[in-house]
Amino acid sequence: MSKEVGITVSKSENFSDWYMQVVFKTELVDRGPIHGLIVLRPDGYSIWESIKESLDKKLKDTGHKNGFLPVLIPQSLLSKEKEHFEGLNPEVFWVTHKGNSEKAMDEKLALRPTSETYVCSLYNKWIRSWRDLPLKINFWNTALRAEIKGTKPFLRTSEFLWQEGHTAHTTKEEAEKEVADILQLYKKTIEEELAVPVITGKKSEKEKFVGAVFTDTLESLMPDGKALQMGTSHFLGQNFSKPFDVKYLDKKDDETFVWQTSWGVSWRLIGGMIMIHGDDKGLVLPPKVAPIQVVIIPIYSKEDKENVLQKACQIKDSLSNNGIRIHLDDREQHKPGYKFNDWEMKGIPIRIEIGPKDIAKNQIVLARRHNQTKISLGIDELTEKTLLELKNIQMEMFDTAKKILDESVVRVSEYQQFKKELENGKMIDCSWCGNQTCEDKIKEETGADLRVIPSGNTKAETCIYCKNSGTTNVLFARGY
Amino acid sequence: MSKEVGITVSKSENFSDWYMQVVFKTELVDRGPIHGLIVLRPDGYSIWESIKESLDKKLKDTGHKNGFLPVLIPQSLLSKEKEHFEGLNPEVFWVTHKGNSEKAMDEKLALRPTSETYVCSLYNKWIRSWRDLPLKINFWNTALRAEIKGTKPFLRTSEFLWQEGHTAHTTKEEAEKEVADILQLYKKTIEEELAVPVITGKKSEKEKFVGAVFTDTLESLMPDGKALQMGTSHFLGQNFSKPFDVKYLDKKDDETFVWQTSWGVSWRLIGGMIMIHGDDKGLVLPPKVAPIQVVIIPIYSKEDKENVLQKACQIKDSLSNNGIRIHLDDREQHKPGYKFNDWEMKGIPIRIEIGPKDIAKNQIVLARRHNQTKISLGIDELTEKTLLELKNIQMEMFDTAKKILDESVVRVSEYQQFKKELENGKMIDCSWCGNQTCEDKIKEETGADLRVIPSGNTKAETCIYCKNSGTTNVLFARGY
Repeated sequence: MSKEVGITVSKSENFSDWYMQVVFKTELVDRGPIHGLIVLRPDGYSIWESIKESLDKKLKDTGHKNGFLPVLIPQSLLSKEKEHFEGLNPEVFWVTHKGNSEKAMDEKLALRPTSETYVCSLYNKWIRSWRDLPLKINFWNTALRAEIKGTKPFLRTSEFLWQEGHTAHTTKEEAEKEVADILQLYKKTIEEELAVPVITGKKSEKEKFVGAVFTDTLESLMPDGKALQMGTSHFLGQNFSKPFDVKYLDKKDDETFVWQTSWGVSWRLIGGMIMIHGDDKGLVLPPKVAPIQVVIIPIYSKEDKENVLQKACQIKDSLSNNGIRIHLDDREQHKPGYKFNDWEMKGIPIRIEIGPKDIAKNQIVLARRHNQTKISLGIDELTEKTLLELKNIQMEMFDTAKKILDESVVRVSEYQQFKKELENGKMIDCSWCGNQTCEDKIKEETGADLRVIPSGNTKAETCIYCKNSGTTNVLFARGY
Repeated sequence: MSKEVGITVSKSENFSDWYMQVVFKTELVDRGPIHGLIVLRPDGYSIWESIKESLDKKLKDTGHKNGFLPVLIPQSLLSKEKEHFEGLNPEVFWVTHKGNSEKAMDEKLALRPTSETYVCSLYNKWIRSWRDLPLKINFWNTALRAEIKGTKPFLRTSEFLWQEGHTAHTTKEEAEKEVADILQLYKKTIEEELAVPVITGKKSEKEKFVGAVFTDTLESLMPDGKALQMGTSHFLGQNFSKPFDVKYLDKKDDETFVWQTSWGVSWRLIGGMIMIHGDDKGLVLPPKVAPIQVVIIPIYSKEDKENVLQKACQIKDSLSNNGIRIHLDDREQHKPGYKFNDWEMKGIPIRIEIGPKDIAKNQIVLARRHNQTKISLGIDELTEKTLLELKNIQMEMFDTAKKILDESVVRVSEYQQFKKELENGKMIDCSWCGNQTCEDKIKEETGADLRVIPSGNTKAETCIYCKNSGTTNVLFARGY
C-alpha cells in the first residue's frame, strides 16, 4: 500500500486532518455536490444500521413505537413556540417554490430541523383521555440545519441521520422518569455497542435545548481534549403542550395539559467512536458495529494457491455459519502486505492469516487490530476462539477508553489550574456558583463550555470563577 | 362500536370514500398541516417495517448494500440529463433560502424527486476499474413530488417512503439481468408478504421512466377496475453514464461507459394491499405484515374476571414465546362486542375469544378475519394450530386475490368489446400494433393506459385500434 493510499497524518500531530483522512480514505463517507452535505457509503451506513438495530430493539422493548413524519414543516407551525423558533430559525432551509412556477408559495416551508412542533400538532388530535397516555413515538429520519462552518462528516453536516423520540405523559414524574430511562438506554447503547464511555448528567440553563425545561446529556471526551455531546434527552414540561393545546381528560374528567419529553442521538455517535478508537493506521472498529468482523488473508505461492484458497473458504464458511461477519480477501492484484495495511486502515477487528506452513500445522495466525497482537490458533478450535476474541476485543476497547476518560477528568480548585489543565487536554471538574455570568466569562476567557452537571455529587466548594459559594460540581471542556 | 367509529361506507358502493375511511379510522395514517403530506402512525409504519425487513434481507442476500444520500440536489446536477429533468421538473420542491436571510441562495436546491443524477455524480468518482463492478447500492429514504391532485394516503402524496436501488455493470446483459432479477425479487415480496398477485412485463415507450431505455413493471388490479403500478425496475443503458461520464477501465485497459439500472418500490404497496383485501368492515391484513397477528378478547362477568384474565395471560405468553405478535385487549371501558368490531375494522387476522365456559372445556374460540369463520380449539394444541392458521390465512388471501385477478383479465379482439369490458372493471388483454398513436387514441377515448406488455406471449392478432397487424399482446386498464 503506497503512502498516498494509507493515512499520512499522525493522530497526535494533526488530529483534525487525521480524522478527515480516516473517514474519506476508509470509504465511510464522501462529499456530495453541495457544501456541508455528506454521503454515507456502504461501510459507513452499515455502522449506522448496527447502532439503529440495537437501539431500535431497546426502544421497542420499552414500549416505544416508530412512525413517519414528512420533512416539511410550515413556518406558522414551526414558529408557534417562540423561544424554540428563535433558536432554530438561523439554521433553517426554506422551500419557497414548486415546479416551474416563478411565483412563491403562499407559505414557506421549513426542512425539518427537529419535529417537536409537528408532533405537538398531531398529539393535539391523538390524545383525548388518560387512556391514550403515555404516548411514546420515535422517528428514524434526518434533520437539516443550514449554517455549517467547517463541515466534518458525522460531526457537523447540514443533514444528519438521527432518531427523534417524542413522548407525552399524565404526570411530571412519569415524564422525568422517561427522560432518565432514555438516557440510560443511550448510555448502554453507546458504551456496549461503540465501546465509548460517557459521562451523564444535566446541561446548564445556557446549554439546554431551546424550549426545554431541562436537558440531560451524555458527554464523551475526544483525544484532542474536546468534549463531544453524544446524545440528549429533554424534559419539555408543559412548554409545548400549552401553546399547542395538548390536553387530556384525566380520571376525574378534568382537562389537563400533558407533560412531554423529546430525545435523540445521531450519526455523531460514529464520529465519536472513530475519534476515540482510531490510531495512526486508521480506523479501529468495535466488533459489534464493524461491517466486517474478520478478514481472511490467504498467503500462497503459485503451487499452493488452490490448497490455501480451499482451506480459507472452509474457514470462511464455518465462521460465517456461526454468525460472524467475515470476508475472504482473494484479490489477485494485491500482495498480502498490501492487504494487511488496507484492512488495518479500515479497522477490521480480526485478521486471519493462512498459508501452506499454517495448514501443515493445522493452524492459522490471528491478528488483533486494536492492540496489534498476534497469536497462532488451531483450526479445530477456531470458531469458538474467534467468538471469544470478538467479545474480548469489544471489552478491552471499552476498558482502555474508560481508563483514558477517567484519567482525563481532573479536579481543580483554582482558575489558573483550570486554564492549565484545559491546555493539557483535560476535562475540568470544578465547583460553580450556578450563575450564567461565570459560565459566560469562563467561555469567553478559555473557550470552555459547561458540558455537564453530573448527577449525584454534593461536596461543592467555592465557584472556580467568582469564588462565591459553589452550589454544584460541574465539568467544563472545550466542545465540538 | 357506534356507526361513526366504524366504517360507514360500503366498499362496492363508494370505493374511494371507503378507502379514505379505512386508512384514517384504523389509525394507519393522519393528515399533517400541509396539504398532500401524510403522517404514518405506528400501525401504518409497522406494516412498512415488515415490508422493508423482508425486502432488505433479499437485497442483501443478492449482494446489494445500503447507503445514505442527502435530500438536497442542486439544480445544475438534476438538469444534467435533459429528458429526465423535463419529466421531473414540474413536480420539484425548491429550496431557495437559508435562515433569516432575505437573499436567495446562489443556486436553488431540489428536494430529491429521485436520485439517478446524484448517484451518477458519485459513481463517476467511485468507479475506476472493472474490479469496482458491479456496484449495487440501495437507499431507504423518501422522495418528494410537489404536484398532487387529490391526495390519497399511500397512493398520491407529496412525500413518500420508498427504496431506490442504483446499480452499475460492465455489460448490457448483466444490467438487463439485474433489472429482471429485481423484478422477480419484488414479485416474491409483494405476493408472499402482502398476498397481492401481480402481472409483470414491460412498460410501453410512452409509459417508461423518463431517461430509461426500458422499464419493467409489476401491475395489480384494484377492485374498482383500476390498475396500480406496484413497482418498477429500469434499464438505463448508458443514458446516464454518458452525460455523467461514468467510465471504467476494462480488462484490456480500455475506457468504457458503465451500464446502469435503477428500481424502486414505495409505500404504495400498502395502499394496494388495503384495496385488494379490505371489506365493508375495514382492513383485512395478511398475517406476515399485520402489526398484531392475534388479539385475545376475554369475556367475563364480575366473578369470572380474575380466572379468565389469568388464562388469557397464559395464552398470550405462550403464543408470544412462539414468535406470534399478540395483544390481549383487557380494556375495561369496552364490552366484548365493541372490541370484536374494533379489531375487525383494524384487520387483525385472528381473534381468540375466551370465557368461563371455554375454560371449563379447556378450549377457546378462534375467529378468522379474512373469511369470517370461527372454530373451537383445545388450549393444549393452540400454539401449533395458531401458527398453522396464520400460514393458511396468508395463503388463502393470496389464492382468493389471484383468482379474482385472473378472472378480471379479459381477452378481447374488438374495440367495442374493449370499451364494454373496461366499463365492467376488467383489465383488457388485446393486441397492439406498437404505434403510440393508437395508444394515445385509446387513452383519449377510454381513459385506459397501456399498463404492461407481459413477457413471453407470441400469438398477437390485429391491433385493437387500427386493425393493422398486431406486433404484441398487451394489457390496458385505467390507472391510479
